[in-house]
Amino acid sequence: MTTIRIPHSKVEELPAQFRHCIGTGRLGLALQEEYAKHLRLVQQDIGFSYIRGHGLFHEDLAIYREIETEDGVSSFYNFTYLDRVFDLFLEVGLKPFIEIGFMPKAIASGEQTIFYWKGNVTPPADYNKWEDLVYETVMHLLKRYGHDEVRTWPFEIWNEPNLINFWENADKEAYLKLYKHTVKAIHQADEQLLVGGPAICGGSDEWIDDFLAFCTKNQVRVDFVSRHAYTSKPPNKKTPDYYYQELAPPSDFFDQLQPVREQINKAGYADRPFHITEYNTSYSPICQIHDLPYNAAYLAPVLTNLHKVADSFSYWTFSDVFEEYDVPRSVFHGGFGLVALHSIKKPTYHLFRFVRNLGSDILYQDDYMIVTNKSNGDITILAWNPTGQKKDVRKLAYELEVRGQSYFLEKERVNEYAGNPFRVWRQLGRPRFPTKQQVEILKRHDMPSVETTTISTTDGTLSIALELLPNEITFLTLSEVHDETSTYIGLDDRLLPIASDNLS
Amino acid sequence: MTTIRIPHSKVEELPAQFRHCIGTGRLGLALQEEYAKHLRLVQQDIGFSYIRGHGLFHEDLAIYREIETEDGVSSFYNFTYLDRVFDLFLEVGLKPFIEIGFMPKAIASGEQTIFYWKGNVTPPADYNKWEDLVYETVMHLLKRYGHDEVRTWPFEIWNEPNLINFWENADKEAYLKLYKHTVKAIHQADEQLLVGGPAICGGSDEWIDDFLAFCTKNQVRVDFVSRHAYTSKPPNKKTPDYYYQELAPPSDFFDQLQPVREQINKAGYADRPFHITEYNTSYSPICQIHDLPYNAAYLAPVLTNLHKVADSFSYWTFSDVFEEYDVPRSVFHGGFGLVALHSIKKPTYHLFRFVRNLGSDILYQDDYMIVTNKSNGDITILAWNPTGQKKDVRKLAYELEVRGQSYFLEKERVNEYAGNPFRVWRQLGRPRFPTKQQVEILKRHDMPSVETTTISTTDGTLSIALELLPNEITFLTLSEVHDETSTYIGLDDRLLPIASDNLS
Amino acid sequence: MTTIRIPHSKVEELPAQFRHCIGTGRLGLALQEEYAKHLRLVQQDIGFSYIRGHGLFHEDLAIYREIETEDGVSSFYNFTYLDRVFDLFLEVGLKPFIEIGFMPKAIASGEQTIFYWKGNVTPPADYNKWEDLVYETVMHLLKRYGHDEVRTWPFEIWNEPNLINFWENADKEAYLKLYKHTVKAIHQADEQLLVGGPAICGGSDEWIDDFLAFCTKNQVRVDFVSRHAYTSKPPNKKTPDYYYQELAPPSDFFDQLQPVREQINKAGYADRPFHITEYNTSYSPICQIHDLPYNAAYLAPVLTNLHKVADSFSYWTFSDVFEEYDVPRSVFHGGFGLVALHSIKKPTYHLFRFVRNLGSDILYQDDYMIVTNKSNGDITILAWNPTGQKKDVRKLAYELEVRGQSYFLEKERVNEYAGNPFRVWRQLGRPRFPTKQQVEILKRHDMPSVETTTISTTDGTLSIALELLPNEITFLTLSEVHDETSTYIGLDDRLLPIASDNLS
Amino acid sequence: MTTIRIPHSKVEELPAQFRHCIGTGRLGLALQEEYAKHLRLVQQDIGFSYIRGHGLFHEDLAIYREIETEDGVSSFYNFTYLDRVFDLFLEVGLKPFIEIGFMPKAIASGEQTIFYWKGNVTPPADYNKWEDLVYETVMHLLKRYGHDEVRTWPFEIWNEPNLINFWENADKEAYLKLYKHTVKAIHQADEQLLVGGPAICGGSDEWIDDFLAFCTKNQVRVDFVSRHAYTSKPPNKKTPDYYYQELAPPSDFFDQLQPVREQINKAGYADRPFHITEYNTSYSPICQIHDLPYNAAYLAPVLTNLHKVADSFSYWTFSDVFEEYDVPRSVFHGGFGLVALHSIKKPTYHLFRFVRNLGSDILYQDDYMIVTNKSNGDITILAWNPTGQKKDVRKLAYELEVRGQSYFLEKERVNEYAGNPFRVWRQLGRPRFPTKQQVEILKRHDMPSVETTTISTTDGTLSIALELLPNEITFLTLSEVHDETSTYIGLDDRLLPIASDNLS
Repeated sequence: MTTIRIPHSKVEELPAQFRHCIGTGRLGLALQEEYAKHLRLVQQDIGFSYIRGHGLFHEDLAIYREIETEDGVSSFYNFTYLDRVFDLFLEVGLKPFIEIGFMPKAIASGEQTIFYWKGNVTPPADYNKWEDLVYETVMHLLKRYGHDEVRTWPFEIWNEPNLINFWENADKEAYLKLYKHTVKAIHQADEQLLVGGPAICGGSDEWIDDFLAFCTKNQVRVDFVSRHAYTSKPPNKKTPDYYYQELAPPSDFFDQLQPVREQINKAGYADRPFHITEYNTSYSPICQIHDLPYNAAYLAPVLTNLHKVADSFSYWTFSDVFEEYDVPRSVFHGGFGLVALHSIKKPTYHLFRFVRNLGSDILYQDDYMIVTNKSNGDITILAWNPTGQKKDVRKLAYELEVRGQSYFLEKERVNEYAGNPFRVWRQLGRPRFPTKQQVEILKRHDMPSVETTTISTTDGTLSIALELLPNEITFLTLSEVHDETSTYIGLDDRLLPIASDNLS
Repeated sequence: MTTIRIPHSKVEELPAQFRHCIGTGRLGLALQEEYAKHLRLVQQDIGFSYIRGHGLFHEDLAIYREIETEDGVSSFYNFTYLDRVFDLFLEVGLKPFIEIGFMPKAIASGEQTIFYWKGNVTPPADYNKWEDLVYETVMHLLKRYGHDEVRTWPFEIWNEPNLINFWENADKEAYLKLYKHTVKAIHQADEQLLVGGPAICGGSDEWIDDFLAFCTKNQVRVDFVSRHAYTSKPPNKKTPDYYYQELAPPSDFFDQLQPVREQINKAGYADRPFHITEYNTSYSPICQIHDLPYNAAYLAPVLTNLHKVADSFSYWTFSDVFEEYDVPRSVFHGGFGLVALHSIKKPTYHLFRFVRNLGSDILYQDDYMIVTNKSNGDITILAWNPTGQKKDVRKLAYELEVRGQSYFLEKERVNEYAGNPFRVWRQLGRPRFPTKQQVEILKRHDMPSVETTTISTTDGTLSIALELLPNEITFLTLSEVHDETSTYIGLDDRLLPIASDNLS
Repeated sequence: MTTIRIPHSKVEELPAQFRHCIGTGRLGLALQEEYAKHLRLVQQDIGFSYIRGHGLFHEDLAIYREIETEDGVSSFYNFTYLDRVFDLFLEVGLKPFIEIGFMPKAIASGEQTIFYWKGNVTPPADYNKWEDLVYETVMHLLKRYGHDEVRTWPFEIWNEPNLINFWENADKEAYLKLYKHTVKAIHQADEQLLVGGPAICGGSDEWIDDFLAFCTKNQVRVDFVSRHAYTSKPPNKKTPDYYYQELAPPSDFFDQLQPVREQINKAGYADRPFHITEYNTSYSPICQIHDLPYNAAYLAPVLTNLHKVADSFSYWTFSDVFEEYDVPRSVFHGGFGLVALHSIKKPTYHLFRFVRNLGSDILYQDDYMIVTNKSNGDITILAWNPTGQKKDVRKLAYELEVRGQSYFLEKERVNEYAGNPFRVWRQLGRPRFPTKQQVEILKRHDMPSVETTTISTTDGTLSIALELLPNEITFLTLSEVHDETSTYIGLDDRLLPIASDNLS
Repeated sequence: MTTIRIPHSKVEELPAQFRHCIGTGRLGLALQEEYAKHLRLVQQDIGFSYIRGHGLFHEDLAIYREIETEDGVSSFYNFTYLDRVFDLFLEVGLKPFIEIGFMPKAIASGEQTIFYWKGNVTPPADYNKWEDLVYETVMHLLKRYGHDEVRTWPFEIWNEPNLINFWENADKEAYLKLYKHTVKAIHQADEQLLVGGPAICGGSDEWIDDFLAFCTKNQVRVDFVSRHAYTSKPPNKKTPDYYYQELAPPSDFFDQLQPVREQINKAGYADRPFHITEYNTSYSPICQIHDLPYNAAYLAPVLTNLHKVADSFSYWTFSDVFEEYDVPRSVFHGGFGLVALHSIKKPTYHLFRFVRNLGSDILYQDDYMIVTNKSNGDITILAWNPTGQKKDVRKLAYELEVRGQSYFLEKERVNEYAGNPFRVWRQLGRPRFPTKQQVEILKRHDMPSVETTTISTTDGTLSIALELLPNEITFLTLSEVHDETSTYIGLDDRLLPIASDNLS
């Protein structure tokens, strides 16, 4: 272990892309009280800017209806629930990153559905009806929220059309047609609205080329390009409750995405943003990795670096209020959420909170840590140690050049033993439907351990040594101390029953 | 260290006297928002039944006024603030334990005052006016809150009249006269109201004999006898900010109070309750002991045993919103409170919370710990280790006889390093008026450290070993585990990136 | 108009049956935040004891699952959502009045469904699976909430099996079989649980006889008998948004129910309670009568009298968060709720609030009003004037014998012009999805108008004259005045710029 | 009565000066919970920008202390309470408008005090100590809140030094000396801080000339000039509870202030703002006019016009939590507050709320009303009718030119019968210390009456006729209606039991 010396000078900017957008379970779930609680929690501690989820046109939001009258069938658009959902988003400081989909039953050309909640993934049977639906919905938004506001909301067309599960036959031509018609309907409402696609998952990046070529050729607008990224391999074991998967290393995100950015540039869209509208470790909603400290430690370098290849990246998802596989069958069911049911914070929640508390001036960065300076003068440091191995303790030592004499240091740690409610739940016997008392216990154990000390400079530097346990993320805050001790005339700690020097 | 074997059978009852009553700064402070916040916090976590403080008739509550009219001077009684204070108490589940005092300026015979807030401690100049004041106040309470309710509120006459600071010349005859007149006025309003005294501090227990003899002889009613108890010696150093004091051992409380109970019995009042209407370690409002883990560890045997010699004991006080010496000059100023300014919990707060969470059935008790059984089947244990010495680690080992197979154990620890915001404040440079950021830091460090594990029985017993750091209090909760692991078909933790066995 | 003289003596008791139970949309809706807001509102102002709704076993609560494993298919019971729903109920002071139904798809023998949300109404294909489902669900409740608690929760078997919409073919034999098997499963969990049926709607009361005869003959327990009651006639016009219906007079409730009570008695069940587990004016969820002052005025005599023929009656329903016809297509869509979307109180909400504030001692009662005495000495009066006619003003005059000299009178009125947000919504142009500003306006107009005065007795009586506008309900509170005016020495209102005598 | 025709074009701007600043009882009262509740209420509905009150250096905030140490007496500055008070202000969106005063006892040259709470009004005995106190206090503010923030906080030196009650002998020379030294100390901390005076009350405006001449001559900075204004005459009757006073007409404010603005201009300070740092009708804290609708009606033209002669005007005060005369002896005691004790809104509260809801574009204005256009398109109108006479009904008729076809009109009225809790309190027998039930009644009657209707244009105008009862203020909001009625296919209101045409 070498000691690294870190000068007090900015080497690079740390932007806020990691909290540009967050994923959510289908929009209809936003009607739930539990969902709203989790969202308020996340917004208070992390503060995302946008939110994106499936199901805008799904049956439970109930937007599209066909009504029989004396004069025949007429379309009716019901925005009772949509208003409630978007009002909630705006109330908590989130703008919708709108995903256009899936297909209302009454318009769908087929019966193929996806998920427990049966989203229809077939093209429109009648493109006029589809365009009307899109147009009327957008017009309603413009009236309710104003043109200025809605022009800041991106409209992404469909979700992962390159997968046969999400789009009938993964039919590319059909997708391009859908894209064209949908954009037309959106721009009929307001030409300045932002549109993009193709929202593909990894594995068929030729779609990017074909999509952009199509748009160029047909003069269809593309305001942004979107793709998803997960680093899990196919399950090596499936059970009724969980899927087991292995992960590629974190660098896989960069390996997947860097070439796509280049494809976009080459296609003549270098000035358009590239949004990763979904990412996570595993793509399975029942993979326990999501619940573990490992997930946080693994993602730490991703959150602090992915802005180098993408303009935003949206963690999938903020909450375990989610139903793709089924209604959750246990409190820790391997869901995507930063927050587990009952408002229990998972380790990755704290990763986001820590990155939120980094400064915008990077002083130093390597594969295992990042050191930043905040506008209030504090220095904040995030370090990580993802590993599945029991013995992999990581030691870090560095000397920080600073300007003050004495610093208060606060260290927050999440690892197997701290900030890990999954472990406590195991100790409790993995109760599927925990009692109120058990929920209270789990919530008492969803926060990092904290340690504090005061350290002084030697020759203008602070010496700091860290030891990260396996799967740990550590967050350090260093604040200059303005010592007022001398103002307490006659102070004498030796006369107190203090059983420590109390400062170390 | 011997291992103690603890059978699963009740050896004694643990009553709730420790939370029968709590002390407060003068009643006028109850108008403050900060005060109300602390009170709500304390009531939520501990839940006292009564509250007692000075200053009912002090100028800031403004009850007594003399008004000049055309027909001369008339008395006016203003209950605007009193109603607000008592409404707050009842709203948070507290009944007033009323202390009658001090003397309104307009009725006082002299000018002697006590405290920064200048409570007048002289006898009435006019006993008719005094009786009217007491009568009118009690009548107002009876009208507003009802006879049934007010009959449960004890009325204690004055505070520490045996001290020249609290009662002019510590004049015993004058006190007995005051007692007689006050009781008369109270009973004129309602004969069933409870009255008592003499509310003395330690050092002159002959007052008890004289007080009871006087009441017997003059047929003045005494529904309860009250006294105070502190175990601190005179200050060995005084500074503008702090007094430094040493404490007698905790057993001093029992040595002080046992004889008084016997005096009461001998005087023919064996059937009357004996209330300790104030107690604490130091009697000084600027003694840092109150802020330390030592204070909690020292008081642990007191809270769990003092009911053996008294019918209630009222900790002085719940909050550092308090002004006897001066307005607090620093966040940690050595105040009496369980809660420091800015709603920061001190170690003794957790002692009360822990005792609150003990069961009512004692299974075992010795000088360093108590083991109880709760009605929900949990076993809870409190252990303590008061010492001023750095090396005094205390080890405890015992075998608990239990009925279940497997137990979830949660351990909460307060010591020099955990649940000790005083230490963090020192590390921050003892800021007198902390910034918002510093307050947040202090609040992040006002909770115990928590650890969990699952343990299994051997031959029907659980083996538990504790190591208490200096000045530690430890609280253990043992809950039987109903293991649902087998319901997760195909579960295989070996496939997860968990870097520990995760259950130890 | 004759003046009625009302002596100050109790003529009868007014029991609290009208708030024994309240209806709710299907249980799955209780996950919604909007639902929870309405429920908290209702409980704060009215305070029901029980809550009853459909859909316990519907797909959205997701209780029943069949899982394929290596060893074949096994049943899985998921209580994630059920716990959340029942926890909410108990948190707001409500006990479940459990309706057992409808049929999980996986157990159902057919595909017939009811409602927008597609509740399956066919008998079990496999009675063993059904019994297991009922047993496991009840066992879970017993474990989570305790036997003592759950023994106070009635279990009603199915809903309106005498209607072909609610029970395949309205097959009586099939229902009796279901009843028998279900009761068996419930009692297997705990024999003391309360069971009942047949939960029929009006029109085929021979079911009552047959049901009781069957139970007597087969020794199947019946702890209570239940039936529904509505007074609306078949729609005379149906539109996509609303059904239009006429109502029989309020007395129709009594005409429907009195004979049933007699049937029960004759069948040997005179000691069993008779619960009206649903009632309202119209049975349609899109009948605007529910939104009108007329609905409140019409139901006033029902709420104050129906306890004479039934042991409880459960208004269908507390909230417009409801989806039987469809997701609400407009804020005022004729839903059953006391509370409209956006927490807007309808006139009938105030009727319930008024009856809640009646005293338990009836001093007088006739066809248009009720006069009661409260335990705090207040006299409260409710009067009503249901009519569709513009000219039907009702005048009432009476002399109340009272004990005090002077009374403060507060009059709250709901009629076409006050407490009628429906009217304001019409004035706003019937916005289907109101803006935030419109919602605020609607909420400003959902409270009664209030007037106050002070009146004095003449010969020990108070003279009161009322004029009720069409469709008005009026609530009067009379509180004795204890005049303190004389304590303001020198008071002289003539010196103030008051432009009225200010007391009339 | 002539009908006024009002074109739809802006004639003038209505600025927000009326809510630039609000007065408060002494700063120490800001520690109270009741105070904070009122402040939050006021900020939510009205939203002031600054707050100004006495007592910064009064004993209860406890800033200045002299401490005896071995080395002699030293000064100590305690900001525990000041921080709490200013933190509250900033939390609710208010900046301090700082009034420097009164004199700490330890620095004062004399013993003269003012008010029940005994503010010392004598010059410093030692100007060095005074300068130190001011400097240290300002430095603390700069450190805690930042230079950028504090530079927006005006510092006004003392209060009404031209009155012998507020400044010993009303000694002008002594005041000028104080001003000079205080400004010096403030600017020693930060030269950019804003300073001003002389904060005089009416009656000796020569002070303005002398003050400005002194500052010009001695090069002492003046960033703003301040004065107070009340329109009440000396009391014609005083009682222990109330003072009775007559008011000059509202125009008296302009008559008092216009000349002062000219004096300032002439003295060469035309570019400095002129702040009315206190105004109200009566200057007495026990004058019932403050509680009456008359007070609101009288002040309506003042709030909508006073910006023409002053840069801000600060209503004295927001709340009846106030103690200058004594602790309030009754709920309605004639206090200055917009909000009475127990959070009861007085009529003048609604005046402020109404003016808050006027638009910034004035379409029309005369002696009895103002018509404005809001940015959202609504037209809002305020009209008033101050009079002490029972018969003075005021009728107004006008034709508004508008652009839409149909408008929703909402009318809010405060007069003797509506929004007048004082009247209800009289009816209740003027209870000094109201019971909880009485408080609830009073709060139910502290809102305006509301009426709604829909009106249509004729020839592009809306005809509106108003009838204002004595002492009424009326607020009208006109919002264009977008009628959706035609989307309800088949709608037929004639089939509903509605007993009115329901739109008038």
